[in-house]
Amino acid sequence: MQQGMDTLVVVGVGLIGGSFALSLKRAGMARHVIGVGRTRENLERALELGVVDEISQDLAEVAGRADLVLLASPVGQMGALMAAMAPRLRPETVVTDAGSTKGDVVELYRRHLPDQLAHCVPAHPIAGSDLSGAAAAQYGLYENRKVVLTPLPETLPSVAERVAALWRACGAEIHCMTAQEHDAVFATVSHLPHLLAFAYVDMVAGKADAERCFDFAATGFRDFTRIAGSHPEMWTDISLANRDALLEELDRYRAGLDQLRQMLAAGDGERLAERFGAARGARTRWHQQFMRKG
Amino acid sequence: MQQGMDTLVVVGVGLIGGSFALSLKRAGMARHVIGVGRTRENLERALELGVVDEISQDLAEVAGRADLVLLASPVGQMGALMAAMAPRLRPETVVTDAGSTKGDVVELYRRHLPDQLAHCVPAHPIAGSDLSGAAAAQYGLYENRKVVLTPLPETLPSVAERVAALWRACGAEIHCMTAQEHDAVFATVSHLPHLLAFAYVDMVAGKADAERCFDFAATGFRDFTRIAGSHPEMWTDISLANRDALLEELDRYRAGLDQLRQMLAAGDGERLAERFGAARGARTRWHQQFMRKG
Repeated sequence: MQQGMDTLVVVGVGLIGGSFALSLKRAGMARHVIGVGRTRENLERALELGVVDEISQDLAEVAGRADLVLLASPVGQMGALMAAMAPRLRPETVVTDAGSTKGDVVELYRRHLPDQLAHCVPAHPIAGSDLSGAAAAQYGLYENRKVVLTPLPETLPSVAERVAALWRACGAEIHCMTAQEHDAVFATVSHLPHLLAFAYVDMVAGKADAERCFDFAATGFRDFTRIAGSHPEMWTDISLANRDALLEELDRYRAGLDQLRQMLAAGDGERLAERFGAARGARTRWHQQFMRKG
Repeated sequence: MQQGMDTLVVVGVGLIGGSFALSLKRAGMARHVIGVGRTRENLERALELGVVDEISQDLAEVAGRADLVLLASPVGQMGALMAAMAPRLRPETVVTDAGSTKGDVVELYRRHLPDQLAHCVPAHPIAGSDLSGAAAAQYGLYENRKVVLTPLPETLPSVAERVAALWRACGAEIHCMTAQEHDAVFATVSHLPHLLAFAYVDMVAGKADAERCFDFAATGFRDFTRIAGSHPEMWTDISLANRDALLEELDRYRAGLDQLRQMLAAGDGERLAERFGAARGARTRWHQQFMRKG
């Protein structure tokens, strides 16, 4: 596996796993792709669409042929998947994943693949959409997107670099950090806002005058609550997996909100305007930078 | 003023006031529009663009000629404007406004125009954009948008109906409620989310690792924080004007958030998923309805 590999095994052939397979095939970095999943129908669709070249519902059966395994299934299933393939993996097979949290996935690698750690590369591609399933797989999903790698202390640098090169071949930009750093950052910029948005919509929906409220909700409400339309089980898993960091961010947020509440109750317009102004300034600067990066 | 009127005075010729003037002129409901404002340059631009037919920086001077006055300036200026025009208004002149809060504006009508109340119609057009100034004025801004009227007990029904007819001529849909009902609804669906979004961005910006956090913020963050880019002084004014209702909503939100925090701390995934699911269900239903209405 210098330039690419012979056999890629993708577990979970949906938007994330399917797009990885398609992009690597186009880049000539994977000659044969085996798609593994629980749903026969989705696998057959993936085969039909050319996302994968071969399908299987039994990871243990095909794991021994893999040069690289990407676990792109929900984090809740990863432990069992690792346990299933552990006895079959060749020592040099690289194992990586696409989980949204990393501390818990690192624990799973340590528990289920203790002899493989030099070849394990926990990872998180920052890409997604409302679409799912094999039909959602697309070339170009990772163009200019970030992929965070959180290599273990045991991970061979050359192996981490191989995984980085594959993602780069998909068009992605690689960032390395520890699993703990990853989870802290994503608690702040992703997990907390989801929790806040869910809490907000749940509160409005529970009001006696909810119907009238929804009636007058407009575009500000629409954008603020978009992420409250996210998948409840997935976000429950993420919240629990990253519980400590999320609780810390939540408490930090509540402390800030309490300060704003005091200013509001005291009628302190000057300090309120100062906090709102600081927020607007930061948001505007962020957005300009975000737009420039495309 | 059966079908329309001779002279409309619009105070504050920006997006809201200017679009009202343009739409009424096109509908043949206002033969002569006088634009009043503090900034000469903006008024001259409005004249140039045909948004208004005459301009003035002195409301007292032109108020006596008005069949209807629309106060489309910040709520903070409305008291002084009402006081300035009070001695000049003809008894039958209709006074209305476009303030985002209504309880405080009702107080201003009562204090400054006690003899005019039968002809006063507090109102709130639910429209806006990031644009401002006379150049932002546009036909069609109010097409299919909601306008809330909060007539006083003293307001003559025929006068409220005249104001309603003007907004309908702009393409808007009229809703009537009390000022208190209005302020409660908008505390819930607009003022609270702004406060929450400001608090969130302010919190992130204050973190030691803010730069790294912003670096990994993506589209969920972008949409959730869009309203934190709103005008700080305007939102300070709105928050203070609607303080009681906003505090009530904020406390309701904090109570809900505390419950989620407890579930999270207790690792109670079942109840978390239930709350998240309820939120997603409500948000999805709302969004489908919102899209249908265009």
